[in-house]
Amino acid sequence: MSNLILRNIRPLGESVTDLLIADGKIAAYGTVPPAPGTAEEDGRGAILWPGLIDAHTHLDKTTWGMGWHENNRAAVLRERIDFERENRLGLGIDPHRQSMRHAIGLAANGASHIRSHVDIDPTHGLRLVEGVQETRRKLRDIIDIEIVAFPQSGLMVTPGTAELLDQALAQGCAVLGGIDPCGIDRDPKGQLDTLFALAVKHGVPIDIHLHETGELGAFTMELIFERVRANGMQGKFVISHAFALGMNDHLRVGKLIEEIAELDIGIATTGAPSATVPSVKRLREAGLRVGAGCDGIRDTWGPWGLPDMMDRARIIGMRNGVRSDNDLRHMLELVSQGGADLMGIEGYGVAIGCNADFTLLNGETIGHAVVQPSPPPLVVKAGRVIARNGQCIMDMP
Amino acid sequence: MSNLILRNIRPLGESVTDLLIADGKIAAYGTVPPAPGTAEEDGRGAILWPGLIDAHTHLDKTTWGMGWHENNRAAVLRERIDFERENRLGLGIDPHRQSMRHAIGLAANGASHIRSHVDIDPTHGLRLVEGVQETRRKLRDIIDIEIVAFPQSGLMVTPGTAELLDQALAQGCAVLGGIDPCGIDRDPKGQLDTLFALAVKHGVPIDIHLHETGELGAFTMELIFERVRANGMQGKFVISHAFALGMNDHLRVGKLIEEIAELDIGIATTGAPSATVPSVKRLREAGLRVGAGCDGIRDTWGPWGLPDMMDRARIIGMRNGVRSDNDLRHMLELVSQGGADLMGIEGYGVAIGCNADFTLLNGETIGHAVVQPSPPPLVVKAGRVIARNGQCIMDMP
Repeated sequence: MSNLILRNIRPLGESVTDLLIADGKIAAYGTVPPAPGTAEEDGRGAILWPGLIDAHTHLDKTTWGMGWHENNRAAVLRERIDFERENRLGLGIDPHRQSMRHAIGLAANGASHIRSHVDIDPTHGLRLVEGVQETRRKLRDIIDIEIVAFPQSGLMVTPGTAELLDQALAQGCAVLGGIDPCGIDRDPKGQLDTLFALAVKHGVPIDIHLHETGELGAFTMELIFERVRANGMQGKFVISHAFALGMNDHLRVGKLIEEIAELDIGIATTGAPSATVPSVKRLREAGLRVGAGCDGIRDTWGPWGLPDMMDRARIIGMRNGVRSDNDLRHMLELVSQGGADLMGIEGYGVAIGCNADFTLLNGETIGHAVVQPSPPPLVVKAGRVIARNGQCIMDMP
Repeated sequence: MSNLILRNIRPLGESVTDLLIADGKIAAYGTVPPAPGTAEEDGRGAILWPGLIDAHTHLDKTTWGMGWHENNRAAVLRERIDFERENRLGLGIDPHRQSMRHAIGLAANGASHIRSHVDIDPTHGLRLVEGVQETRRKLRDIIDIEIVAFPQSGLMVTPGTAELLDQALAQGCAVLGGIDPCGIDRDPKGQLDTLFALAVKHGVPIDIHLHETGELGAFTMELIFERVRANGMQGKFVISHAFALGMNDHLRVGKLIEEIAELDIGIATTGAPSATVPSVKRLREAGLRVGAGCDGIRDTWGPWGLPDMMDRARIIGMRNGVRSDNDLRHMLELVSQGGADLMGIEGYGVAIGCNADFTLLNGETIGHAVVQPSPPPLVVKAGRVIARNGQCIMDMP
């Protein structure tokens, strides 16, 4: 755990001050005398912000740093899943190397924590999880990675998957994933009962992909509500995407949000510009825990995305029709504190005593920092500088 | 008009070749022998693409390069218009200086042509137009700017505006603008009859902002169709935004598109992620002329936007749910050939004999060039290098 003096920074965009980091924690602001043997950095007036959090991504899927993956397949969701499963290793998408690239990219752009869903299916067993676990170990001092055991190919339609999820949780995956119990699995009761039984057995939270739109997604949410309540899993469930909350029925969505709030279910959004995403402002007004993620980037599913939570803050902001400085600040909170709330990260923030996991941001104001693409001048993890100007101290493999 | 030899480029992403530019025109591809006195550039294998075109922007509005404009006003469209009109000059938004910054930014990022709407109202008379006209003169060798005389504050609700538009067209504005004949002017017949009379008098095309959504916008479109037909203005009308074409009624939209195609009306889109934008794929399949623009960037209306048509191609692509390489190429065509089709630019393209207005793009493939933010290595206007790596040869004032 490192000591460091950081001068000339603006914590959360406030007045310029200095910062002392001791034993990897935020120790003091204000007048910090030089200390023999303690390194100093000049923040040059940049904004100090807690480490960014990618609360929904797929480290095992990206082609980042590989040759361009040409894709003119006309595919529906099920076909995308099958194509990827059957071709990923043959295409050279090594889960360890690629997750290293993806995670180092996120760290270089200011992130301190990642929640990554990682595919589990009978074709690969736990191989993909093991690749990302290796990355987690290697990047321990760079960025925290939480792994979600994720049945990408479905649970009920892909026999053998439930047993693999069970093994993955026994081997340390922190969260159990799920996907479209109706749309993919064609058996919502089957998938959800299986997931809740596994989660209760291992004492882990659930984070489920729910792309189902409109009334179908709302139906699945109601099945989830029943089971969260029955299993006492309030505060231990996240719905990712939650496209049903973007449906064009204000009153119906309001009822769903009320129940989500009551059960303390978290929401992870990507702000996908072409999807019926939930209004992040409405979710906040209802008091929900809401985080954000880049989702898959440049993978066999599609070409978009960067390993950059500031880019994601901009996408979510544009998608949500944000204009004001107050709302721009909310976008930055979504990709930081919002993710911490979702993942239950302890010691998060830039208050005295918090872990010294933070990034500096260029910008006159918070709003300016959000809208102006600019690599972060300095990123610090546990009190140690791990990136400068968008370059991580560890090279991508 | 310049001569130049450009080696090692991939025209439209095809095989590597050399290019000879003579007298500012594309003269030859293939083996180009060195010529005494003719400069040479090494394209390093980059993609050669015709100059990008911002077919819908507002050069007179941006705060680019100024201090951050804090904005926590809760405002509807009419209030945004009024706030800007009453405060723009006091805030220091000088139309000449700011349009220089905006246009130089676009050129640095690969643009060769701009269609800019410029506000005309009784508060400013033609002052804002004159500021942008000065920019047009100064940047004559850098980028082409076409000015739309634009009644931002409304025509019927703001007496004196029609006379000012008449003057502006007499003084060389190339296009007549308009805005939400129902939503802003509360008198669709009044505004449209006035606009068409002015356009016919001056022999100029019309390019109207139409933010009106759903049936209201469809109604206004029908009034436009009647007048395009009655005045023989087929091929001389552009509907910008056209949010009504994003309404959730496939058949109704289909009927509107059929008539737009028959009347050869062009569409300019910004792909706004929070708006009901038209599907660019559907418009293309109907054979429409469709261009794209960044709209206002970082102005008193809102904080978003960059002077960068590649960024805009990405926004439109994400908004339209694009995934395939073929569709990524379509996004690049929208911000280039699409704009040329809309504006009727002669000599556009990279075929032999075309004007040597082009940009190089980094990327293994067209798709890669679209999704990967990267400043263009070289931008050429009329055969002369005007920007390298995102830096224009002319500094922003």
